[in-house]
Amino acid sequence: MKNILKIAAVGLLGFFMQSCNNGDSNDKRSRGAMASNVAERVYVAPGDHDEFYGFFSGGFSGQMSVYGLPSGRLLKVIPVFSQDAEKGYGYNEGTIPMLNTSYGFVPWGDLHHVDISQTNGELDGRWVFTHENNTPRVARIDLNTFETGEILEIPNSAGNHSFAITENTEYLIAGTRFAIPSPQRDMSIDEMKGNFKGPLTFVKVDQETGGMEIDFQVIMPGFNFDLAHPGRGKSHGWMFATTYNSEEASTLLEVNASQNDKDFIVALNWQKIAEYVANGGGTKMDAEYAHNKFDHETHTATTEMKKGIMTVDPKDVPGAVFFMPIPKSPHGCDVDPTGEYIVGSGKLAAELTVFSFDKITQAIENEDYDGDAYNIPILNYDNILAGIVREPGLGPLHTEFDGKGNAYTTFFISSEVVKWSLSDFQVIDRKPTYYSVGHLMIPGGNSQKPFGKYLVAMNKITKDRYLPTGPEMNHSAQLYDISGDKMELLLDFPTIGEPHYAAGIPADLVKQNSKKIYRLDENKHKYKVTNESETRVERNGNEVHVYMTMVRSHFAPDNIEGIKVGDKVFFHVTNLEQDFDVPHGFAMIGANTAELLVMPGATKTMVWEPKKVGVWPLYCTDFCSALHQEMQGYVRVSPANSNVELSWSLDGE
Amino acid sequence: MKNILKIAAVGLLGFFMQSCNNGDSNDKRSRGAMASNVAERVYVAPGDHDEFYGFFSGGFSGQMSVYGLPSGRLLKVIPVFSQDAEKGYGYNEGTIPMLNTSYGFVPWGDLHHVDISQTNGELDGRWVFTHENNTPRVARIDLNTFETGEILEIPNSAGNHSFAITENTEYLIAGTRFAIPSPQRDMSIDEMKGNFKGPLTFVKVDQETGGMEIDFQVIMPGFNFDLAHPGRGKSHGWMFATTYNSEEASTLLEVNASQNDKDFIVALNWQKIAEYVANGGGTKMDAEYAHNKFDHETHTATTEMKKGIMTVDPKDVPGAVFFMPIPKSPHGCDVDPTGEYIVGSGKLAAELTVFSFDKITQAIENEDYDGDAYNIPILNYDNILAGIVREPGLGPLHTEFDGKGNAYTTFFISSEVVKWSLSDFQVIDRKPTYYSVGHLMIPGGNSQKPFGKYLVAMNKITKDRYLPTGPEMNHSAQLYDISGDKMELLLDFPTIGEPHYAAGIPADLVKQNSKKIYRLDENKHKYKVTNESETRVERNGNEVHVYMTMVRSHFAPDNIEGIKVGDKVFFHVTNLEQDFDVPHGFAMIGANTAELLVMPGATKTMVWEPKKVGVWPLYCTDFCSALHQEMQGYVRVSPANSNVELSWSLDGE
Repeated sequence: MKNILKIAAVGLLGFFMQSCNNGDSNDKRSRGAMASNVAERVYVAPGDHDEFYGFFSGGFSGQMSVYGLPSGRLLKVIPVFSQDAEKGYGYNEGTIPMLNTSYGFVPWGDLHHVDISQTNGELDGRWVFTHENNTPRVARIDLNTFETGEILEIPNSAGNHSFAITENTEYLIAGTRFAIPSPQRDMSIDEMKGNFKGPLTFVKVDQETGGMEIDFQVIMPGFNFDLAHPGRGKSHGWMFATTYNSEEASTLLEVNASQNDKDFIVALNWQKIAEYVANGGGTKMDAEYAHNKFDHETHTATTEMKKGIMTVDPKDVPGAVFFMPIPKSPHGCDVDPTGEYIVGSGKLAAELTVFSFDKITQAIENEDYDGDAYNIPILNYDNILAGIVREPGLGPLHTEFDGKGNAYTTFFISSEVVKWSLSDFQVIDRKPTYYSVGHLMIPGGNSQKPFGKYLVAMNKITKDRYLPTGPEMNHSAQLYDISGDKMELLLDFPTIGEPHYAAGIPADLVKQNSKKIYRLDENKHKYKVTNESETRVERNGNEVHVYMTMVRSHFAPDNIEGIKVGDKVFFHVTNLEQDFDVPHGFAMIGANTAELLVMPGATKTMVWEPKKVGVWPLYCTDFCSALHQEMQGYVRVSPANSNVELSWSLDGE
Repeated sequence: MKNILKIAAVGLLGFFMQSCNNGDSNDKRSRGAMASNVAERVYVAPGDHDEFYGFFSGGFSGQMSVYGLPSGRLLKVIPVFSQDAEKGYGYNEGTIPMLNTSYGFVPWGDLHHVDISQTNGELDGRWVFTHENNTPRVARIDLNTFETGEILEIPNSAGNHSFAITENTEYLIAGTRFAIPSPQRDMSIDEMKGNFKGPLTFVKVDQETGGMEIDFQVIMPGFNFDLAHPGRGKSHGWMFATTYNSEEASTLLEVNASQNDKDFIVALNWQKIAEYVANGGGTKMDAEYAHNKFDHETHTATTEMKKGIMTVDPKDVPGAVFFMPIPKSPHGCDVDPTGEYIVGSGKLAAELTVFSFDKITQAIENEDYDGDAYNIPILNYDNILAGIVREPGLGPLHTEFDGKGNAYTTFFISSEVVKWSLSDFQVIDRKPTYYSVGHLMIPGGNSQKPFGKYLVAMNKITKDRYLPTGPEMNHSAQLYDISGDKMELLLDFPTIGEPHYAAGIPADLVKQNSKKIYRLDENKHKYKVTNESETRVERNGNEVHVYMTMVRSHFAPDNIEGIKVGDKVFFHVTNLEQDFDVPHGFAMIGANTAELLVMPGATKTMVWEPKKVGVWPLYCTDFCSALHQEMQGYVRVSPANSNVELSWSLDGE
């Protein structure tokens, strides 16, 4: 009977979802005469540029997508946690180390949230940071090259869903979503309660280079950490993170993790804990994790396997960690631009809860607690409330801000975006989304200085929004104009993978730093050659190293003999071009890896293990000139016992 | 001295390219008052659908992209020749066989041209066929599922650039771009001339299933086959393919393959050769090649390694194969909707050459030859000409047709699309492209019935067209309205990889056949389970098979114990949903493969080899309901010598 009731509750949610997904066409009815006006507002004419960059999480694609806004055009997919055959990322020798972990080479990841680096609480356009939810890692993307510069594994964690960057990019915070034994050990799943933990990892960021190092890990109770945001302005030094499954259920969580009326938001003073650790606090724990860095001068990634982390038990730093009760299985936990308001979205709750940082400070000062959970004080709910948004919608998930005193919250079940006021917590406007919106993004909406012109809703269900493409449809985003009192839907555009979050930034803050080429005279690749006279082929046992160049429109050398079946051939290929947008590609028939795509001034390495005797072609894969089609060569492969001497040439020389 | 002249000629091409790439802004000047009008014409309002599907080659991405036109929105990327971590294609057990070749598993391909199946010379919207240029293969994409259904390796070939589909989809024709020894053998590259061959492969297509089988291979001289088109209407039964490098140079082709004033277009009567083979003609040759098929009912791909092909020497079928001389290093070779005109684009020529099929027939009848090349008669150039398009532009590449008597040719060097008349071969209009256009596409433009409303130019150089994204910029496409006398540029949109060609089709010819779900009662996967009561875990030595289901929002089972380090765990996961657009994902921490993304009614299999003792989470990667976040489970991994018994449960049952 209990089960039937539980399942009925879940069924109700299903009903709401279904009713929201049956193609309400309000948008069509309201379109009419405004259509041309709307079209103009998203149209970026040929030769013109978009106003904003949007960096979108790729979710289960493992990559990050760069969109132009307002056009919704996909400018680039940046490979981060997954192999990318197109760019050779994770296939060529220089990038394979980027995907190493303590579990070995992992070719896929689940890229969840993205955030742009900040200085003094404002977007500075230097880096985008992101994280991986399956095999926990964090990553830095460099916005001068739009390439992944560093990936750091997070040990003693599982799932890595809760992610925040502090307002001077001092720390990345990465929270454990799936509580685990800490440290890992062989134990029964049934014994989860009280025995599993939810570590929160603090990664220190080098302010000059963006380099990442694990500073410490706070070993929290075994709840599921969901989402996190940093304090800002007055609340700088703190971070806030939602938890769900405070029931500590290990099975059928859709029912068993929905039992408590309230779960918790963690309020954590990271400055205090960082100080404690800097002064010798904390306990060393065994751990093994991969630290992968890509060097833009050697064009080569390296993996360092690191040992040991510093852990902190919250009870050892009094006054640093508190719980705030919040109904009910909360998802988003968003901090407004002033740092005063923390908006909690209980995804099964009927109301939106807004907390006041001033009141939180006061309650802590007054030790105004309502008991504790695993020795962590629970702040008195009523006394830290700033306000409640009444009847806002069903299934609130995330909130962003426009910098003009308004908040915008997504509602998954009632499938809408709701605008409400931070001054009186009253709803101002609501607009349907198609369908079942998850996250939303306002450029700078997660900083002290939002650019409140557009809002992008990232929807979880697509159905009839585009021409059908079989059982699988791309997820869909929607662009709204929020410059007026009422939101206005402008555009639907499909997305890559599943964007869980996005970060937008005015193009002017990024584009002037965008690198056009790699300078050949700065190329420090171990096997580079910077002119054709240095090209050569060297044998070392069954390893053959080809030092090759590419320039419009030939390879040097382009004829090679003396390769034998059983050899391992390393093609080290340098693109001699020094003009913007003149990449060359390199492919070799039957290679068990991807192509090389080599940007001007860079060197990349492909391994080829020839299996068959014969004369085999190589060619340029990226159309580079009117004579691109002629950019090819041949490699002669002789039997393993052959005496054919190693030779190489270009046009007989 | 000779070399200096050669290089000067090549340098001149470089100069043209450069001058064309310096941001001519004619388009901006001509925009003005028309902008809003243009915006409306490409704007597809939220909830509305695009008018055309565009299937774009992904080039070095190895995949096929589906765009909506006129909006330019990317609706889906269909994995074909490359692994795709997002969809698990080439990673999960059911799709790994799709990428098998005679060289082993090849995770990347260079997808060149795409073409939609035809019936009676008109697009029928059933399949898209395409081919791979590096490790030669052809593939079929099924337009009910938008998935790759079959990949067939082409043996005795290298490069596979020349591709055509006959007008009832009787044959796919795949031409060798990089001439090779036939059969392959250990020989000096210097001995290429006269000894290498350029096989043309004819793949028979099953009219009911789209199934592909190699019928025969015509062993042509060792020129580089570039592009091909079928005859249609009056020329049905023939095919035409350009060759370059009739010099048979093996090195520095940008110079050495540009020596002859004329290369050749092959005119080949495939009906005559097919008849010859059907009647017992041809010679068997040793060959080994992979034939990979994906079964939509078992959701599983299989590889069959095949042996031997039938080859045909052109001299054994008199009257079937001819050469047509064409200046100079031709690229495109395009047949107009009536089948009378064959347009040859000599990419280093100053003029466009148009041949007449009637005159070709006449010349063959009259044996009006101008010598032969390797015993293949060369038709008299002057007597097969239909006309010459004078001063059309620089660097012609490709031509398509609007069905109203006009042809549209791209010019790479002068960076423009030129419209000209098939009745008098006079230029009607020219519009700049940004920059350096390669291929172009008019929906149905390669059939008897083009839909001459839009033209898409696929450009090779991007530079300043979009916000910068570091040294690497996405390639760019441009949409032109060609419904009036003059072409009109409407839109720039970035593309995936490098589209070498595209095929457009009115949406109405495809969308009604688009499958929404896989029926669970038709699921024939070997390890499927269609309800939770059948879920179980079975051990067989160190292999463990998990028969698992997923439904909003839990896995069954979601707790598993008794797994040991050193096991090989097969998760066979069935999505029980039967609603459109409710996929679930499956990920397991530390797996050395990609996620599973499972469409409703389908089963997929992931292998996981646990390396560390502990309790490890699994979860759903694709947001599926308001309780998606709760869709998770745990696997207990014990030491290799553990006695923990195998057990599994959901909510304790």
